[in-house]
Amino acid sequence: MRIALIQSNPLVGDLNGNRAALQQHCVQAAAQGAQLALAPELALWGYPPRDLLLRPALLEEQDRQLDQLCRELPPGLRLLAGVVEAQAEGLYNAMALVEAGQWRLVARKRLLPTYDVFDELRYFRSGEQPYWLDLPSDGGKLRLGLSLCEDLWVSPDILGYQPQDQDPVGDLQPFGIDLLINLSASPYGHGKRALRQQLASAAARRLQCPVLYVNQVGGNDELIFDGNSFVIAPNGALLCTLPCASSAVACWEAPTPPTAAPLPPPLNPLISSPAEPDRDLAELWQVLVLGLRDYAHKCGFRQALLGLSGGIDSALVACLAVAALGAEQGRALLMPSPYSSLGSLEDAEALAQRLGLRHDRLPIAALMAGFDQGLSSVLGGQPQGLSAENLQARIRGTLLMAVANQEGQLLLATGNKSELAVGYCTLYGDMNGGLAVIGDLYKTEVFALARWLDSGAAAAQRRACGLPAEGELIGAAIRDKPPSAELRPNQKDSDSLPDYGLLDPLLKRLVEDHASPEDLVAEGADRQEVERIWGLLRRAEFKRRQAAPVLKLSARAFGTGWRMPIAAGG
Amino acid sequence: MRIALIQSNPLVGDLNGNRAALQQHCVQAAAQGAQLALAPELALWGYPPRDLLLRPALLEEQDRQLDQLCRELPPGLRLLAGVVEAQAEGLYNAMALVEAGQWRLVARKRLLPTYDVFDELRYFRSGEQPYWLDLPSDGGKLRLGLSLCEDLWVSPDILGYQPQDQDPVGDLQPFGIDLLINLSASPYGHGKRALRQQLASAAARRLQCPVLYVNQVGGNDELIFDGNSFVIAPNGALLCTLPCASSAVACWEAPTPPTAAPLPPPLNPLISSPAEPDRDLAELWQVLVLGLRDYAHKCGFRQALLGLSGGIDSALVACLAVAALGAEQGRALLMPSPYSSLGSLEDAEALAQRLGLRHDRLPIAALMAGFDQGLSSVLGGQPQGLSAENLQARIRGTLLMAVANQEGQLLLATGNKSELAVGYCTLYGDMNGGLAVIGDLYKTEVFALARWLDSGAAAAQRRACGLPAEGELIGAAIRDKPPSAELRPNQKDSDSLPDYGLLDPLLKRLVEDHASPEDLVAEGADRQEVERIWGLLRRAEFKRRQAAPVLKLSARAFGTGWRMPIAAGG
Repeated sequence: MRIALIQSNPLVGDLNGNRAALQQHCVQAAAQGAQLALAPELALWGYPPRDLLLRPALLEEQDRQLDQLCRELPPGLRLLAGVVEAQAEGLYNAMALVEAGQWRLVARKRLLPTYDVFDELRYFRSGEQPYWLDLPSDGGKLRLGLSLCEDLWVSPDILGYQPQDQDPVGDLQPFGIDLLINLSASPYGHGKRALRQQLASAAARRLQCPVLYVNQVGGNDELIFDGNSFVIAPNGALLCTLPCASSAVACWEAPTPPTAAPLPPPLNPLISSPAEPDRDLAELWQVLVLGLRDYAHKCGFRQALLGLSGGIDSALVACLAVAALGAEQGRALLMPSPYSSLGSLEDAEALAQRLGLRHDRLPIAALMAGFDQGLSSVLGGQPQGLSAENLQARIRGTLLMAVANQEGQLLLATGNKSELAVGYCTLYGDMNGGLAVIGDLYKTEVFALARWLDSGAAAAQRRACGLPAEGELIGAAIRDKPPSAELRPNQKDSDSLPDYGLLDPLLKRLVEDHASPEDLVAEGADRQEVERIWGLLRRAEFKRRQAAPVLKLSARAFGTGWRMPIAAGG
Repeated sequence: MRIALIQSNPLVGDLNGNRAALQQHCVQAAAQGAQLALAPELALWGYPPRDLLLRPALLEEQDRQLDQLCRELPPGLRLLAGVVEAQAEGLYNAMALVEAGQWRLVARKRLLPTYDVFDELRYFRSGEQPYWLDLPSDGGKLRLGLSLCEDLWVSPDILGYQPQDQDPVGDLQPFGIDLLINLSASPYGHGKRALRQQLASAAARRLQCPVLYVNQVGGNDELIFDGNSFVIAPNGALLCTLPCASSAVACWEAPTPPTAAPLPPPLNPLISSPAEPDRDLAELWQVLVLGLRDYAHKCGFRQALLGLSGGIDSALVACLAVAALGAEQGRALLMPSPYSSLGSLEDAEALAQRLGLRHDRLPIAALMAGFDQGLSSVLGGQPQGLSAENLQARIRGTLLMAVANQEGQLLLATGNKSELAVGYCTLYGDMNGGLAVIGDLYKTEVFALARWLDSGAAAAQRRACGLPAEGELIGAAIRDKPPSAELRPNQKDSDSLPDYGLLDPLLKRLVEDHASPEDLVAEGADRQEVERIWGLLRRAEFKRRQAAPVLKLSARAFGTGWRMPIAAGG
């Protein structure tokens, strides 16, 4: 039996559009000779549908779309797709078998994640039995084990923690499964591709059958689904992979029965090759481009705007914007204050020129003076200290929003995770924007990605997204200068913060691992430093609550997966 | 046995401070002769602790605090309090019995809410058996049924929906319970007090025993816990109530066995009295004052700042700020543009004078001209239309933030729910602020609360929070003028929006009930109007994602209980 893996990129809640796209993918699959096609978890809805699931009208709409889908399915093709099952007692995250002229529900998701960004128990009930399905195949039959996303996440030795009480993989063991299907919507995370493959590999070995893993692709708000669907052999080896960060339909030939025919040799072993660090950065780049492009396009924006300071953060975001939307769709404003260095301004202009990005200078000194004058009457003097620094950032943020509003552009926020963590950023100022593109990259990670982008290793990626492939893009002048907000004379980030090389690992422990200051001191960090960082991290919660959506890359991004009280003590 | 109900106001995550406060409450309870004291759900943590529960260090800290609490408990007093139980398999939302020199876990919460603002299955596992406890009492013993908050929410006829599968109240029936204890952290909502009493009343009748319901009080970020703890008689009648919106310790004498001694007459019947609408508005006022005061104080602010436009929204917020923090702790800026009417300016000043609120005029015409000039060079002309309107709001927002930063004030956002719903508000402009005080009141509700506040019915409440008790506060000039943003000449809200009397009920159906446009058309609304509102509601999601925390009052507030995708179709 030839099986097509449909790695589709849905728009959340657009049931009609997603159905139409799925139908097209099915036509492609049939053209490739597939008898069975697999679409991701909640394929008609797009993952995560969030509170759209609470709208009864959309649940009815889904059934109409499924009716249409089965009427228009290419002859001879069956489709397994993620759907919502509505019962009197509640909803299930389910799987439908769609055939010519009919569809029916065949499985329910059993393990419902509620950690990090996931809220599935807000919407769904758990399936409580193993699910499988017999399909006719070349005169015989093929028994498919059916699972949805988290149902595969059951191996404590791989996960490093004890998963939920049920074992959907183990429960299938008595039933002589020929193939295990997993329909997923698994967002990108560092190391996640390998983790998924390891989990599927373990399942393949436990069930002694191939595993077909189909993931959603595309950016949906802060989540980026990287695709990277794959097939695993019964011995655990990787047989076939779909691309990272683009939609695709690919076929795999299932032997009937699978063990009778020899399996093709594995594609590559599940270990890190020497090129992994570069591959990781290439993948990181790809998902960032995808996340930015999809957020813009799915929100209806063709164009993006950003403030270009001459620093590394806005430089990297400019490169991503040009890669995602095209140089002609981008615009940059350079808004020097009296504290901006000439070097920064020149670096920013040179970068914009290298990128072919439209850019304008718009000095803010006169507006600063206007605010100082206006505020003097109510403050009894000009704004001082942080108030004066924030004012500059807010003048810039207001200028950017005026241009973005007038020209219908998506404003991109350029702050990084280190800044968001310690509050080294201005609410309603440089935090302005519809999307915080690199808000889940620590400063040291921003440097690493910039170095990679400027290196020969990135040439193929740069070419693929229309960036100049030769020479440095960001350049040493921007990469190597000491980080500075340039909000007062000769200011450096290191005046108020530890070196990022020191800061970032501590932040990672506090944010990603929920470690305590005591833990860090026990690990050798300086107590005073740790307590200062801890205080900064906690006091910045009110800023993060109003931050733009942050493209999620790490195990714990600021956003829907970080739920901290603002008014808190202890 | 004399039982004390401790209605405490914790600071989330401040385990040490909350333990110390609880200890003081226990001293008061003992002084009143109590043998048993009851503290709310998660009393040491403050509800909701959110992702603080993921920090192992805080879980260890809790046990140290419980050790200290039991060492220092007044002699002869036992305490039942909500705690976290940490087991290898995960956490439970639990109840501890604290006695002189020892404490132990005695119950686990069984029904864990995951709807609206609640995420309990993100953190907790469910208790799976009925829990009770025998305590010695006057030579005999008293059998206490133990439940936590949602465990009482099991009556489909009262709730109007089928609750979860377990029935923690019914499961206690075989065990001869003498008293049912419910430790809660139940946030305010319109009609919620009566609902809780009805649920407890149903439980009392089912178990034929009194019910003691202890609720948390205080504002924690967007949630306001109104207290309103109570005792219900076995026949379902209300016996005793604790105050709304303030912390309190009150005692109730449990008969031993309860049915042997005659119960005191019920306090009042569980039906609406003619004064209910005024009582509802009085309670709404009280919880808003509490929510604002607690947010400010728990975030470390003594002072608040707001922009006063002469419109009803900022007028109401000014009254709330003065009530919550005191007139001398408030400051208002009047920031007229060339489009502001003289009437609005005078109305705003007169209001500030009536409130005794420090206020200054800070015209923005010069800054508008400055931005127009600067932007002309990059826009090829001055900002137009919405871009120009937003610019005015952002200049004001920047001025307010400069003053708030300089003077260490909490900036209050003054927008209402109707505006937030349809996006009739400017991100980084009038949406600026640490707290959206009336962001969960539709415009028509703002009018209603303002009318009440200006009426004789509010005299006692006004006196209680230090506002002038005589005459009108907001005044007819502000209450009766047609709503206008005054961002262009002679602008009225009704130019771009339906009358609020028409709009608000439609919004309520779309937001609170998740109704579809089709539903509203079927109910008689104009299709074109409904589709326009629907489009506005959906397109404003990106603004709401960056809005300040909104004090929650309704069944569905914009904030943590409203989880909608931004990039969405359909």
